[in-house]
Amino acid sequence: MIPGTMMHDYPLTLTAVFERAGTFFGRNDIVTRALDGSIHRYVYADYQSRVHQLSNALRRLGVESGDRVATLCWNHYRHYEAYAAVPAVGAILHTLNLRLHADDLAYIADHAGDSVVIVDQSLLPVLDQFKSKIAKLRGVIVISDGEPIPDGYHDYEALLAAESNEFDAPTIDENQGAAMCYTSGTTGRPKGVIYSHRSTVLHTLAACMTDALGICENDRILVVVPMFHANAWGIPYCAAMTGASVIFPERDLRPEPLLDLMVSERITLAAGVPTIWNAILAALDENPGRWDLSALRMTVVGGSAAPPAMIDGFERRHGVHVLQAWGMTETNPLGTLCRVKRHMSDWSDQERLNVRSKAGYAVPFVDTRHVDDSENVLDWDGQSLGELEVRGPWVAGRYYNDDEQKDRFTPDGWFKTGDIASIDAEGYVQIADRSKDVIKSGGEWISSVELENALMAHPKILEAAVFAGVHPKWDERPIAAVVLKGDETVTKQELTAYLEPKFAKFWLPDEFLFLDELPKTSVGKFKKSALREKYGDILS
Amino acid sequence: MIPGTMMHDYPLTLTAVFERAGTFFGRNDIVTRALDGSIHRYVYADYQSRVHQLSNALRRLGVESGDRVATLCWNHYRHYEAYAAVPAVGAILHTLNLRLHADDLAYIADHAGDSVVIVDQSLLPVLDQFKSKIAKLRGVIVISDGEPIPDGYHDYEALLAAESNEFDAPTIDENQGAAMCYTSGTTGRPKGVIYSHRSTVLHTLAACMTDALGICENDRILVVVPMFHANAWGIPYCAAMTGASVIFPERDLRPEPLLDLMVSERITLAAGVPTIWNAILAALDENPGRWDLSALRMTVVGGSAAPPAMIDGFERRHGVHVLQAWGMTETNPLGTLCRVKRHMSDWSDQERLNVRSKAGYAVPFVDTRHVDDSENVLDWDGQSLGELEVRGPWVAGRYYNDDEQKDRFTPDGWFKTGDIASIDAEGYVQIADRSKDVIKSGGEWISSVELENALMAHPKILEAAVFAGVHPKWDERPIAAVVLKGDETVTKQELTAYLEPKFAKFWLPDEFLFLDELPKTSVGKFKKSALREKYGDILS
Repeated sequence: MIPGTMMHDYPLTLTAVFERAGTFFGRNDIVTRALDGSIHRYVYADYQSRVHQLSNALRRLGVESGDRVATLCWNHYRHYEAYAAVPAVGAILHTLNLRLHADDLAYIADHAGDSVVIVDQSLLPVLDQFKSKIAKLRGVIVISDGEPIPDGYHDYEALLAAESNEFDAPTIDENQGAAMCYTSGTTGRPKGVIYSHRSTVLHTLAACMTDALGICENDRILVVVPMFHANAWGIPYCAAMTGASVIFPERDLRPEPLLDLMVSERITLAAGVPTIWNAILAALDENPGRWDLSALRMTVVGGSAAPPAMIDGFERRHGVHVLQAWGMTETNPLGTLCRVKRHMSDWSDQERLNVRSKAGYAVPFVDTRHVDDSENVLDWDGQSLGELEVRGPWVAGRYYNDDEQKDRFTPDGWFKTGDIASIDAEGYVQIADRSKDVIKSGGEWISSVELENALMAHPKILEAAVFAGVHPKWDERPIAAVVLKGDETVTKQELTAYLEPKFAKFWLPDEFLFLDELPKTSVGKFKKSALREKYGDILS
Repeated sequence: MIPGTMMHDYPLTLTAVFERAGTFFGRNDIVTRALDGSIHRYVYADYQSRVHQLSNALRRLGVESGDRVATLCWNHYRHYEAYAAVPAVGAILHTLNLRLHADDLAYIADHAGDSVVIVDQSLLPVLDQFKSKIAKLRGVIVISDGEPIPDGYHDYEALLAAESNEFDAPTIDENQGAAMCYTSGTTGRPKGVIYSHRSTVLHTLAACMTDALGICENDRILVVVPMFHANAWGIPYCAAMTGASVIFPERDLRPEPLLDLMVSERITLAAGVPTIWNAILAALDENPGRWDLSALRMTVVGGSAAPPAMIDGFERRHGVHVLQAWGMTETNPLGTLCRVKRHMSDWSDQERLNVRSKAGYAVPFVDTRHVDDSENVLDWDGQSLGELEVRGPWVAGRYYNDDEQKDRFTPDGWFKTGDIASIDAEGYVQIADRSKDVIKSGGEWISSVELENALMAHPKILEAAVFAGVHPKWDERPIAAVVLKGDETVTKQELTAYLEPKFAKFWLPDEFLFLDELPKTSVGKFKKSALREKYGDILS
């Protein structure tokens, strides 16, 4: 082999990403809106200074290369500071999912080997429930806005105040761990992955491509997705690299305050899960003309499938473009994005909507394939359903310290996503179901996602989740749980008649449950396991 | 160190870049206009097929990993096929600059160790002049459109026709050489660099960022810059990765045919050196309303500094946005890009033009600094002039087999560009001169670029180059060589009076030469060495 003559020893590090924000975009602002509506605003020059102080403080506390520093925080600027400062000292930022049960948090923080936790003062009661289970824990840093700090804990602001705003950055190997996330663990125990500097840098470059999220210096990004959810889908890194402004809503994710913030901060890009966007769409529909979203170039929806009715509703009724993306904690998370291709530009709105409702085709350097139960690779015919497998430089090659999960990685180097999908000739992936949510009726697969998409297009339905009920004859049959809008009413007969023209007869749900709300996971997906547990035997 | 758990062994290869075009964007077209005006058009699906055939053919000819395969070709689709097929077999694509002197070509092709040359039938006479000097040469492949192929040479189309369009790609190490370029060697002998798969992939990702070239699937890119000029600035790779259409003008770079092509192919992005754009601007000015360039989102100008008058003329008179970029063969080539920052959006047109006339600030993962003669790093004060140094994953760390050039690389890991520049507090680099073109009058530096920019803003001047004349008292004094528009006339006194308010008195040229044309280098830059040679002693 004849190697290139370029600087191959120049490592791809997050330090370069974050330093760039301060060096070139020092005047661009970072905004946090607190629960009481007050605004904290500063610029990347301030941010850089404080990141350096935090890095120095971590060093003074004895944080060394490879140490895991956890955060238990809402979405705000100091959490963003930790994103930069922890990997800058060579340590690993571990964003804890504050909505998990204390038992899961205990398992996760202990399994990760967290030695320091940075926690919001408001979340100390959560930390108190599992702190004693973290074997290696030796320091807690509390972020407070003047509220008293318990004895024995460090005060975030006091630590920073004692440090220089110049930081002597260590040399970092690009394969070194930079950040760590655990899956929310809806099946089995949570599994952790460690993103390296390299993988996150490459993910950031890909995400900033015009055909991906197109993040640029002119953007003002509302980070609705929690910063513990696959590190807010990597958006904070994209923002720092390009100098885009980030706007953090802290913990208030109600639709109206979010919409107010989108107007007042002239948001250009906002990212979150479908359940959030569904609520926002309902608020927009109920208050025509109240919010001016003309600055918004796009919303990014991921985490679970965006129903076509939502994509269409945003676009047609409110002029808001919705981009669907698919990914997982194990893919850092960007895997596919649903851009409509050039040759489809003269297709009808309905045809384009059909495309846009898919997960999309793979971003550069992510490979996709789907396989049957015997690991035979299936054709890209848009029909055959199989388990989606992916590989690429920001896809997990293994779980952290978890040999039991080895079967999620194929011998030829692919990660088994657990999603059941088809892929069409253009490369568009369509997710039919999480494999754990698949409904198998008399040996035939029924896609809960397709049924949900159809139900959510019904004018009276706000949310719908379809899950498997145990059935004496067919093994499993679909049950639909729906939440109606406002004080609407509808009958099972009406909904069955509504679905009938769209699906084969055996796909139609055997039962409809009318609920006040649907259970959701810690990251805002429908929690079908809870529905199955409570209602799964009503057919038997 | 605790490594990440991601797939670090997934290599960054050009194979993935080029395969992506065929896999996802098979319907998007690739266009070549021949010298006779005829159009060749096919799509990425055809391209992928033929690239596979060419890879198979190269293998059959015995091309192995690390072999250098040269091209001596104009800008056309078959050259683009070689871009993909050569690195796909693990070999190194060496694009020869067909405008160089045969002696230089002989040195370059032999020094590179080229074993196969792919040559346009029309360029066989050029190859014949130096072919015998290439020690390792063992095969010549001729690209012809039916013209007879000399005995002993391979016919490109016949080779492809004999091969399968399925290719079994080898495993490639990302640091492996993929492409090779030599500097045009205006000073000293030519120096070669080998781009690795990794360096070109990273360059491609950075170039596709919205704030860089923003190349996307909707683009139709006119590749005016020669494909041997730092591999057309990497644009072919960006196009393949995103599915953008590329339009090749083959060898006809006259302004009117280029403008016709921009209209007929609805070009969205075009890239070339300032001398080309200057001629295009003149054609636009002379023919108001003749060409509809409404599809054009941007022109990218690089290779040498774009005069402010040109940037302004395009924008104000023709609504065409000009983006200035700086780079070198040694930087793959993208180093800096001149985007106007968000906080400058309300500046006056003149203030923004002043910014846009600079080389710009560094793209992500390129570091910039400038140093004085003793290698002291200078402040970013927008004033201090020093040699620009850069580093980054797509910057050369050494020249290929050329120990004599070691002093171009600093002990602390930077590449010395040879450009004299200032850097301001916002990170904008402004190139004052190539170090070899600097004029040093009585110990003071005079920027030839600034004088040229001022002269080219004069309504009667088409082109201007300022160079150093030997002077008995001041060592060197500036001489301006100008080409007037059409049949304009102007005197030395008029030009001196025009410059006087803009510069210190000692900057004003001692002499003005009125020439019919300016000598240019093989890549279209002003060839000041030729001017110095011919006119350098007229002051002594």
